[in-house]
Amino acid sequence: MVKREIFLNKKNLTQAKRIWKDILDKSNYPLNLEPEIISVKDALGRIAFETVYSKQSSPFYTASAVDGIAVDARITNGASLSTPKVLELGKDGILVNTGDPMPKGFNAVIMIEDVEITDNKFRIFESISPYRNVRLIGEDIGIKEPLIYPNETITNAHIGVLLAGGITKVKVYRKLKVLIIPTGEEIKKPGEGLKIGDIVDTNSYMIASFVKEANATPIISEILPNDERKIETFIKNKIDNVDIVIIVGGSAKGTKDLTASVINDLGKIRVHGISVQPGKPVILGTINGKPAIGMPGFPVSSFIISHIFLKYALYKMQGRNLPQTKKLKAVVHRPITSKIGVTEFIRAKLGNVDDKTVAVPLKKGAGVLSSVSNADGLLKIPFDSEGIEANSVVNIEMLKGSRDIRNQILFIGSNDPLLIRYFSFIKKKEPSFNIGIINSGSLGGLLAMSRGECNITAAHLFDEKSEVYNIPFLKKYLKKEFVLVHFSLRSQGIIVQKGNPKNIRTICDIARPDITFVNRQRGSGTRVITDYLLQKNSVSLESINGYEHEEFTHLAVANNVKLGGADCGIGIKYVADALDLDFIPVKEEQYDLVILKNDLRRKEVRFVLDFLQDPEFIKIAKGFSGYKYIGVVDEKTQ
Amino acid sequence: MVKREIFLNKKNLTQAKRIWKDILDKSNYPLNLEPEIISVKDALGRIAFETVYSKQSSPFYTASAVDGIAVDARITNGASLSTPKVLELGKDGILVNTGDPMPKGFNAVIMIEDVEITDNKFRIFESISPYRNVRLIGEDIGIKEPLIYPNETITNAHIGVLLAGGITKVKVYRKLKVLIIPTGEEIKKPGEGLKIGDIVDTNSYMIASFVKEANATPIISEILPNDERKIETFIKNKIDNVDIVIIVGGSAKGTKDLTASVINDLGKIRVHGISVQPGKPVILGTINGKPAIGMPGFPVSSFIISHIFLKYALYKMQGRNLPQTKKLKAVVHRPITSKIGVTEFIRAKLGNVDDKTVAVPLKKGAGVLSSVSNADGLLKIPFDSEGIEANSVVNIEMLKGSRDIRNQILFIGSNDPLLIRYFSFIKKKEPSFNIGIINSGSLGGLLAMSRGECNITAAHLFDEKSEVYNIPFLKKYLKKEFVLVHFSLRSQGIIVQKGNPKNIRTICDIARPDITFVNRQRGSGTRVITDYLLQKNSVSLESINGYEHEEFTHLAVANNVKLGGADCGIGIKYVADALDLDFIPVKEEQYDLVILKNDLRRKEVRFVLDFLQDPEFIKIAKGFSGYKYIGVVDEKTQ
Repeated sequence: MVKREIFLNKKNLTQAKRIWKDILDKSNYPLNLEPEIISVKDALGRIAFETVYSKQSSPFYTASAVDGIAVDARITNGASLSTPKVLELGKDGILVNTGDPMPKGFNAVIMIEDVEITDNKFRIFESISPYRNVRLIGEDIGIKEPLIYPNETITNAHIGVLLAGGITKVKVYRKLKVLIIPTGEEIKKPGEGLKIGDIVDTNSYMIASFVKEANATPIISEILPNDERKIETFIKNKIDNVDIVIIVGGSAKGTKDLTASVINDLGKIRVHGISVQPGKPVILGTINGKPAIGMPGFPVSSFIISHIFLKYALYKMQGRNLPQTKKLKAVVHRPITSKIGVTEFIRAKLGNVDDKTVAVPLKKGAGVLSSVSNADGLLKIPFDSEGIEANSVVNIEMLKGSRDIRNQILFIGSNDPLLIRYFSFIKKKEPSFNIGIINSGSLGGLLAMSRGECNITAAHLFDEKSEVYNIPFLKKYLKKEFVLVHFSLRSQGIIVQKGNPKNIRTICDIARPDITFVNRQRGSGTRVITDYLLQKNSVSLESINGYEHEEFTHLAVANNVKLGGADCGIGIKYVADALDLDFIPVKEEQYDLVILKNDLRRKEVRFVLDFLQDPEFIKIAKGFSGYKYIGVVDEKTQ
Repeated sequence: MVKREIFLNKKNLTQAKRIWKDILDKSNYPLNLEPEIISVKDALGRIAFETVYSKQSSPFYTASAVDGIAVDARITNGASLSTPKVLELGKDGILVNTGDPMPKGFNAVIMIEDVEITDNKFRIFESISPYRNVRLIGEDIGIKEPLIYPNETITNAHIGVLLAGGITKVKVYRKLKVLIIPTGEEIKKPGEGLKIGDIVDTNSYMIASFVKEANATPIISEILPNDERKIETFIKNKIDNVDIVIIVGGSAKGTKDLTASVINDLGKIRVHGISVQPGKPVILGTINGKPAIGMPGFPVSSFIISHIFLKYALYKMQGRNLPQTKKLKAVVHRPITSKIGVTEFIRAKLGNVDDKTVAVPLKKGAGVLSSVSNADGLLKIPFDSEGIEANSVVNIEMLKGSRDIRNQILFIGSNDPLLIRYFSFIKKKEPSFNIGIINSGSLGGLLAMSRGECNITAAHLFDEKSEVYNIPFLKKYLKKEFVLVHFSLRSQGIIVQKGNPKNIRTICDIARPDITFVNRQRGSGTRVITDYLLQKNSVSLESINGYEHEEFTHLAVANNVKLGGADCGIGIKYVADALDLDFIPVKEEQYDLVILKNDLRRKEVRFVLDFLQDPEFIKIAKGFSGYKYIGVVDEKTQ
């Protein structure tokens, strides 16, 4: 079955967007959408199908607009401060409250604070013109007046106006229906048991969220097998009842990728492959004239394609304008390289350091969805760029509100479960405590802080010469004033599988040929210890299976041991216990926080000091095995 | 019951905001909100209650990141372009697809496009390092890694990450519950029959929409009578189960206004009356420590207070940042006066004229909710300002998206039901046709156009001397090049009640003492005709009851006749027929559109010409009684 020739050449992003717009223009939406009649009370955010005319006037009777005395304006002629007029209550004037119908024969209202009332008389001090302080019939809304036009989005004020105009039901476009089809034998529903090779279907639900955000209806189908015939039959049966078709997975050009064949058989492929990263293996086309997307299986690719193409389609097909993206200028302190010819979307964490808005790039991989859920913004590197130099000012598309970012502080440093728990503790007590957390290892954190990328870092770097933790490194790398917090003492050691089946006893054992090791990344405090211990024991690094396998956190190391990716690794006792693994202690180490002194004027940074001795947190810390919690500021640095 | 002394002095907006913030700070939200457990699939936009840690790694096995051949990296050592290596498939390397588990003993994958395969051999041209093109365990998410922190809003990427982390249920804050209590015997539910003096409860549903927009739950109570005891008992029974209490109506200081007493009896009033317009008679306070609002009954006041105070509370009590208001710079071509000491919120229509963003103020009254539903933005006039001068550049808070406003064009001119129908027709066919419509009368429209406030106007101004419509006026008032469209001929006449019970025959009858007249505003084409006819027939204007009662549209005139606000008025036949009234024809007149020539390069403006001879619209126009539709451009102006 040679079908490869159907695939078109890869397009760049601008070309692909233009083709997608053409597909959507030709799809004849929103005109294709039938109306439905709903209650006005439920109509917020829906789109009017037609002009709605009021059925009743508001007010529908002449009414007083104030509390006062209704009069015939002519009777007030000649009244002034020097020549007040005294009139008879009940005959010349009648007391009315705001909203009361105007009594017959009266056409103006004198405000209650402008008259003097004694018994059945009232005294006025100025004349009044007809219809003064009177709400005329239809002042707000006249009968048969247009209240909303077709293709307008119904707002909260529209709801008020429609109800005031006597409208309780309104004709709106029905919601767009988006069919999302997960494909592949390896894909399993969330919550199902998984075996090696299985992948949880996260994409369908993330895509569905994009659909919901645009006030449309997602329909997630059963997971279809990698079977062209079955997928085609399924779509044929559904296509008349949906507006957009999304096939998730199989969109690349591999031997098992059938999505292109499916769209080609049922409709037309207009784009296959875009020079964007992530998101390259996407298909854009039509089935029965309806927009169809072959969505890449990698979750970040799926996010980027949904963000750029699906969102645009959802708005355009409803006749709505896409909300303008919010941009923010930020400094990037480290260089970012990018392949020429590819538009790259870098996920970035944003924060404020040294009174500058800074952006710190997150992991690049298309599989790292946590790089999106953690991201505050997207940095687009154009296809004709090789990347950006250090300290460049860039435009970032914000994924969060500007107020969420404005007060955010950044932590880049050594990863520690108790510190994460501490930040969570503060964030729970103080919702305005926005902190972006990036795990870089101890040295990476110090360098990030010296570059101006973070407000807080943490390290557990042991200096052999002075036998002091951190301070020698801080003096060497950080040319800024800082406050040091002795956060905790932690027990480091060798993490091995439960029951220690490989009988690992000392650091020397990890070089045994039957052992696979999992390492930490260069620059991490744990790597420093590892290399120090290996050298001290004269272990040849080349003899260690897995020495090149670097992980960024203690948990990741433990996790690899737990799941059989490795037999052992170096890490803290806490994670061994947390994952029910065995632990051979090697060293107790000092884990410190470093805060820029200059940042202490910021509320968010001070929070980090404020809660250190909170009894509730101290109690939590006691429950963390392998830790001695300290939480004390080093006096010399204060 | 003298309770007036409980009312505090009126505050300015800044003071009131500060007090409201204090109330909210002390309310101890969101900590007061209990959690609830919901499905991750439904969690979009909800707020995490606690840190959620992953339950499974993603991937949870070592997997190939590409389509290719899995190898032990060591076997590739020494391979290069000049010295390729030939290896055995099945033994030295195994074919894998993206996502496949790595076969035991292999630690890197060579991409399929980088190898040559023949039978059971494959040839490689470079060496590869260990773990290249391999997705390690936990690359995306490690087990027990934090996926979301407390008080974070759950986004579409979070949904993906949570599901990937094996989380299918998530603990979130329950939604805020807002109790909305409409009060007053005159208030009726939407859809109920109304008698004179009744008012439809539109406020509760509009306020409820604000609540829904912030992802909270509105609870609209039954309408309570103006009875202090009953309202208090009702609130006492409900207060434990809600988070905010809003009492709608009765918030002013009149004799029938009980809301202040109620809040004072049950809790504490902190603000009563704010120097804002609209929105002055508001109450801010607490009941059982929970924020309480006494909401003014006038709908625009209710909108402004909801917009400023309720929205802020809803976000703050959820621990969320209020989204930043979007501002736009615009020119206001006419002066706006404002009372010193009052912060005024002017509703404005926004558009683009002469390449400038312009703002046109809408009606001021607190009762004119249509001034909000029609508004694109709010212009805040500070309390220390007497208003703004003509041609000032101002900052407008946008109520719509910037893309909705950017392409909007403005119509200011003579009101005509068929023209409204025409604009609706275009808007239905072309959702991007954003047109702001303001009824100003013929002369008002010409002046607006000459000031640069609109792109399109319409007039039916008869010049007695030349016996020509519009052109003499255009030449006099409009110093710009224009295109004239002969839109229609309309039958003008006297609109009287059905069956003509007052036996009105000629224009002279409207001055009869038993007759009440309803007039059109100065500058309207119809007013010009009215005054012309009255003068020609030597009718004394002072003898006409209701001559000072000015309405802005034909429908408003007819509506006043229909509902007994007047016995007769001058207007077009169409509205008399539409409201089932009788009509005495007086004159057939020419109704023209005027479009600035310079604006014809804009798509939105050209739409107005494009559909003039659309057969579907011509058919619609034929159904409009009292009209001869023309829809032809005046050649001399083309």
